[in-house]
Amino acid sequence: MHTLYTTLGSGNCYKVQLLMHQLNIPFRKINIDVLSGETKSPDYLAINPNGKVPFLILSDGRMLGESNAMLLHLAEGTEFMPEDRFERTRVYEWLFWEQSSHEPFISPARFWIAIMPEGREEKAEQIAQWQERGNQALKFMDKHLSRHDFLVGDRYSVADIGLYGYTCVAHQGEFDMSSYPAVSAWLNRIEQTTHYSPMMDLAQAA
Amino acid sequence: MHTLYTTLGSGNCYKVQLLMHQLNIPFRKINIDVLSGETKSPDYLAINPNGKVPFLILSDGRMLGESNAMLLHLAEGTEFMPEDRFERTRVYEWLFWEQSSHEPFISPARFWIAIMPEGREEKAEQIAQWQERGNQALKFMDKHLSRHDFLVGDRYSVADIGLYGYTCVAHQGEFDMSSYPAVSAWLNRIEQTTHYSPMMDLAQAA
Repeated sequence: MHTLYTTLGSGNCYKVQLLMHQLNIPFRKINIDVLSGETKSPDYLAINPNGKVPFLILSDGRMLGESNAMLLHLAEGTEFMPEDRFERTRVYEWLFWEQSSHEPFISPARFWIAIMPEGREEKAEQIAQWQERGNQALKFMDKHLSRHDFLVGDRYSVADIGLYGYTCVAHQGEFDMSSYPAVSAWLNRIEQTTHYSPMMDLAQAA
Repeated sequence: MHTLYTTLGSGNCYKVQLLMHQLNIPFRKINIDVLSGETKSPDYLAINPNGKVPFLILSDGRMLGESNAMLLHLAEGTEFMPEDRFERTRVYEWLFWEQSSHEPFISPARFWIAIMPEGREEKAEQIAQWQERGNQALKFMDKHLSRHDFLVGDRYSVADIGLYGYTCVAHQGEFDMSSYPAVSAWLNRIEQTTHYSPMMDLAQAA
């Protein structure tokens, strides 16, 4: 059985759990408390020298970092990964875009507003910048999704799961989702897929 | 023929040019002056609404953003992309790691020191943070490369090209490369591969 090291509330950890849940892949989950510094503890660094979560230990013992690499690995050969070469490239493009142009802005804005609000005042200037860039990202997604039901090939894929991870909690970073009707409709569409489960439900599951 | 929109001095643009050069794929190159705001001009935004470079227009007219997605697309079916499923996953892992843990620190440190030094004083505090995180990334690579000739499968692949893009100019961000002997040896190893060409040579080529 695979083992996934996760932390509560992380969109990057949630993505991987959601895919495994939807693929009905059994896995053991170990929660790590990032806020108390557990990812930097000698015990955790002995497992993952990168000191980050999620971290996946496959059933054969091989270890894997980077949430989007996990998505691509687990989805290979399933309905969640296209077979067509160019559609595969589009999946890569969205997943790299998520890590370069979406998550780096939406995630920290949400973190300092919803998870660590005691730091919000000190971070006010940066939060405003993250919100500006995050809104650019949501606008870009909204334009694409106004013409397509899903991000790639008009079919639910790991590209959608990768982007869903932090888009579904963007409102917690005070992003006004009513400005992005196509993104909101896409969130709803994902929430109706087979074996979908919300972040908190997967977080609380054993 | 493919068309690549690039800008001078960008490691992300260089990666894609280096792979196409090593694969002997002919392409037309159009230089965009990011510093003068050309990526935000109406003309460029009409081509690429993301306003970023590199941007690749394939010979059949399809358009592609994200340098690492370009690498994966162009390398598919060539010696630069492994066939083994788990080695492919390792390529994904390194390329996502590059965008999340390497480029976001090494690239801006180098930018404000070597390309836009007039902003260096104002950015001093951030540069110190980027250098700290960039050094963590180089240390992580050095540990891996002290046991392997190349990043994945002990063979030169797009994982190496993806990481080479900004590692080869890290010294311009005042990263002390003598602290990373295995990384330095790997840089030399890449520079001896067939049809390798340095950043400035490809930048100046028509």
